[in-house]
Amino acid sequence: MAQGLKVLTAVLPQDVKLETKPYDLGAKRWHATGETLTDAELEQLKQHDAILLGAIGDPGVPSGVLERGLLLKLRFAFDHYVNLRPSKLFPNTETPLAGRPDIDFVVVREGTEGPYVGNGGSIRTGTPAEVANEVSVNTAYGVERVVRDAYERAQARPRKKLTLVHKNNVLVHAGHLWKNTFDRVGREYPEVTTDYLHVDAATIFLVNDPARFDVIVTDNLFGDIITDLAAAVSGGIGLAASGNINPSGEYPSMFEPVHGSAPDIAGTGKADPTATVLSVALLLRHLGMEAEAVRVEDAVAADLAGRAAARTTDEIGDALAVRVAG
Amino acid sequence: MAQGLKVLTAVLPQDVKLETKPYDLGAKRWHATGETLTDAELEQLKQHDAILLGAIGDPGVPSGVLERGLLLKLRFAFDHYVNLRPSKLFPNTETPLAGRPDIDFVVVREGTEGPYVGNGGSIRTGTPAEVANEVSVNTAYGVERVVRDAYERAQARPRKKLTLVHKNNVLVHAGHLWKNTFDRVGREYPEVTTDYLHVDAATIFLVNDPARFDVIVTDNLFGDIITDLAAAVSGGIGLAASGNINPSGEYPSMFEPVHGSAPDIAGTGKADPTATVLSVALLLRHLGMEAEAVRVEDAVAADLAGRAAARTTDEIGDALAVRVAG
Ligand SMILES: CC(C)[C@H](C(=O)O)[C@@H](O)C(=O)O
Ligand SMILES: CC(C)[C@H](C(=O)O)[C@@H](O)C(=O)O
Repeated sequence: MAQGLKVLTAVLPQDVKLETKPYDLGAKRWHATGETLTDAELEQLKQHDAILLGAIGDPGVPSGVLERGLLLKLRFAFDHYVNLRPSKLFPNTETPLAGRPDIDFVVVREGTEGPYVGNGGSIRTGTPAEVANEVSVNTAYGVERVVRDAYERAQARPRKKLTLVHKNNVLVHAGHLWKNTFDRVGREYPEVTTDYLHVDAATIFLVNDPARFDVIVTDNLFGDIITDLAAAVSGGIGLAASGNINPSGEYPSMFEPVHGSAPDIAGTGKADPTATVLSVALLLRHLGMEAEAVRVEDAVAADLAGRAAARTTDEIGDALAVRVAG
Repeated sequence: MAQGLKVLTAVLPQDVKLETKPYDLGAKRWHATGETLTDAELEQLKQHDAILLGAIGDPGVPSGVLERGLLLKLRFAFDHYVNLRPSKLFPNTETPLAGRPDIDFVVVREGTEGPYVGNGGSIRTGTPAEVANEVSVNTAYGVERVVRDAYERAQARPRKKLTLVHKNNVLVHAGHLWKNTFDRVGREYPEVTTDYLHVDAATIFLVNDPARFDVIVTDNLFGDIITDLAAAVSGGIGLAASGNINPSGEYPSMFEPVHGSAPDIAGTGKADPTATVLSVALLLRHLGMEAEAVRVEDAVAADLAGRAAARTTDEIGDALAVRVAG
């Protein structure tokens, strides 16, 4: 987070005054107070133009507590229905794929519906007769707005290609809604080439032919899964940035690395801040500062191209700050 | 299918009489009659020791019709709760991964629960007010039996390692049931080393370090997704076999390639029958014919090791039949 703010400060034009307010959320706070995010904090957060979220969590917090109580709470409360996750294989970065394919696509993951809504429950919990259900909720309202956003993004890119990823041969009701909406909205974007892939097949293409993808639109859960895979093949989770976007601007959008908090290396100076820095680029773009966003991305590309010796978190942040300022 | 039967016939000892009965199911039949699988056929199928299923489907059949009406109907009717999917990277086969990692693991995918149960629906369908839900149903009964099966398999393997894959930080109710069951049953298998991965993280390891896996147990949907990815990294979907197993033997188990019907190359002689042949090996093993199963697998390994020129479907089948017989 410190490196992200360092680069953000360095890239801003002199006449833009940056006001930041740190919020002490996450695992440490939960251990100390049992609180994740209070309603008062949620109200305060609403006042900001944007939120930069550091990776949260440690193994001492029960699974689900911070996810539901903080991360998903923010995504839902601020109606972050576009979860934007670009994948680009920069030169000189690692990929497990032979042949270094030319990867440059973006996943538009729905952020406010699907099995993430918390609409599940169990009966006879802990007994041999337990039944535990999870409900994926999909609405025409929710699907159409994210599909439309994805078409807009595809339309604005050189290749103008949009792929819907779902599992409509099994999840037939949700799948029908997604596919019908995708086809119907697509008629308004005749220049955009479309195709459809089942999520299982999509994982195959992500390793066999990731260059085929331009923009992908998909639901919350499938988006979660394929963007981790996408990050893995395009430089690793240490480089993957994301935006939780409320396109209407009614609520602040939130930017965060895709990776977790890596508690095993916390404080050692070994964490790569690049995903957070690239999240800053997405934040700048969202706020209309395209030139600054590109400067940050170019700085990262240049830094990666020249990477050799191991550097600390701080050193990488310093190097990037120098590049964007210069 | 023809090649699978050819190899099966060739590998059987002289004193074992093979009786086969072909069932004309799939896309062609559906186009002609509108039927997928009748109750009478289901009854007849029950009489067999095992079922070998050819890949089904063509683009003319609406999505979901054959899946729900035939494939999933069989899996559910015959209580195929263990969906077994081995992944092994044979020498001289293609993998998109640099460095050809040493891949040899098996996924035990639950086959009768999760979002596959068909427990979904929609209201105001086709209107801007549509809501479409899909329910993942998980029972202690269903989870425990498949988890137990996975522990048994892990226990029987040299590395004795079992990984649970789920998404228990978001799907907290189902996740709780899976994780608790996994931990509780694990106490009966003190020799088995266990770990847990979220499904998104599992996709990363499948491309970055697939050699770490020995046995994976997971739910129906996550299993669907990660086994396609597993197939892609270990020789491609053309080599991936699977068993839909009813361990109690109350119903016949069913063996099939993981891949689809590839309607674009149907009848051209270009399809690789290896996944079907490897499914025959799983069938033989399930029926207690371990030596024959190994012979088929060894024949495939030898055939792949020597593969050079392009051969037709038939030529590959012939070559394998000669190897298992000789
Ligand atoms: C931490 C978890 C709730 C989250 C998700 O599943 O969305 C994460 O995996 C992500 O992709 O941002
Ligand atoms: C065809 C489809 C219903 C099936 C599934 O999702 O189980 C297939 O993808 C598989 O993995 O066997």
